[in-house]
Amino acid sequence: MPTIRVEGPVLTVEKKRELARRLTEVAVDVYAIEHILVLIRENPPENVAVNGVLIADRHREGKA
Amino acid sequence: MPTIRVEGPVLTVEKKRELARRLTEVAVDVYAIEHILVLIRENPPENVAVNGVLIADRHREGKA
Amino acid sequence: MPTIRVEGPVLTVEKKRELARRLTEVAVDVYAIEHILVLIRENPPENVAVNGVLIADRHREGKA
Amino acid sequence: MPTIRVEGPVLTVEKKRELARRLTEVAVDVYAIEHILVLIRENPPENVAVNGVLIADRHREGKA
Amino acid sequence: MPTIRVEGPVLTVEKKRELARRLTEVAVDVYAIEHILVLIRENPPENVAVNGVLIADRHREGKA
Amino acid sequence: MPTIRVEGPVLTVEKKRELARRLTEVAVDVYAIEHILVLIRENPPENVAVNGVLIADRHREGKA
Repeated sequence: MPTIRVEGPVLTVEKKRELARRLTEVAVDVYAIEHILVLIRENPPENVAVNGVLIADRHREGKA
Repeated sequence: MPTIRVEGPVLTVEKKRELARRLTEVAVDVYAIEHILVLIRENPPENVAVNGVLIADRHREGKA
Repeated sequence: MPTIRVEGPVLTVEKKRELARRLTEVAVDVYAIEHILVLIRENPPENVAVNGVLIADRHREGKA
Repeated sequence: MPTIRVEGPVLTVEKKRELARRLTEVAVDVYAIEHILVLIRENPPENVAVNGVLIADRHREGKA
Repeated sequence: MPTIRVEGPVLTVEKKRELARRLTEVAVDVYAIEHILVLIRENPPENVAVNGVLIADRHREGKA
Repeated sequence: MPTIRVEGPVLTVEKKRELARRLTEVAVDVYAIEHILVLIRENPPENVAVNGVLIADRHREGKA
């Protein structure tokens, strides 16, 4: 059973529903396997850093 | 040090205690290594999807 | 930067290219973020088990 | 579907079969869920370090 | 883009900032790649077990 | 025991030794915990995509 783990910022339930449905469609097509598991992780911005700077701090400085 | 990561629905502390103890016993046996790390992850039902449908939505429809 | 980790059976490079492109399209849409990282893991069938039986053994018995 | 990811040194197929079967039994008991996915990862000793020293180097020095 | 995932006990934002900055510096040096992603995970002590005993229970017994 | 998982391109053993030693030093400092586990993953360039394009394909086009 292929599994897909997505990590990113917080999502609404509606967005999670769309994300899971559409990622699964892609995986079913490419693997030609029906059973797909999707796990969504929502990381708070103080727990992620790009190039050494926490996302929480980048936002503070007005950078995305 | 072998590590075991388990992801599933929310558990009581008593269940986590049992899960960690018993998974460790199995790993000690199979690897013949004493030091085992177990990490438990509890995923909310709106963050997991099987076959494209969120667990949260499946429950709503009366399916497990 | 949202990241997507996909784990499943071995794929051709052409399939990986399609998988990465299409998963990224979905993530860009849902997160409204351009930068997406995709990691593909290919697990040999003796390293994955569903319901306690290795995929390698299920294949041997003619089950998918 | 609870998933279990085990990482450790290289195993024979027979050991993987036992590991998957027994870890699944524990998870079925604790979660009271039948469907369990087990993924086994085998890490070469130069890709794992305990307390800053690669396992490959510890072996060289006669320490396990 | 190399990614670093760190899992451990809860940290202050100041500690996360230092951790992300310093881990990134090391990775930039070793990989000679500028773009580094760091993800920090904070595990509650009842979700981690060493040698079969939850950290939460070890603390209770006065062991670290 | 804090764990650090690093994923990136292939490294020499010498580079892995340095990476593990230096990442561990940082983690020991920040967590004030001695025992640190480092796991290194080396991803082939056809298994990683940035912004929907496999690293393997980007290299072909002369982009890093």
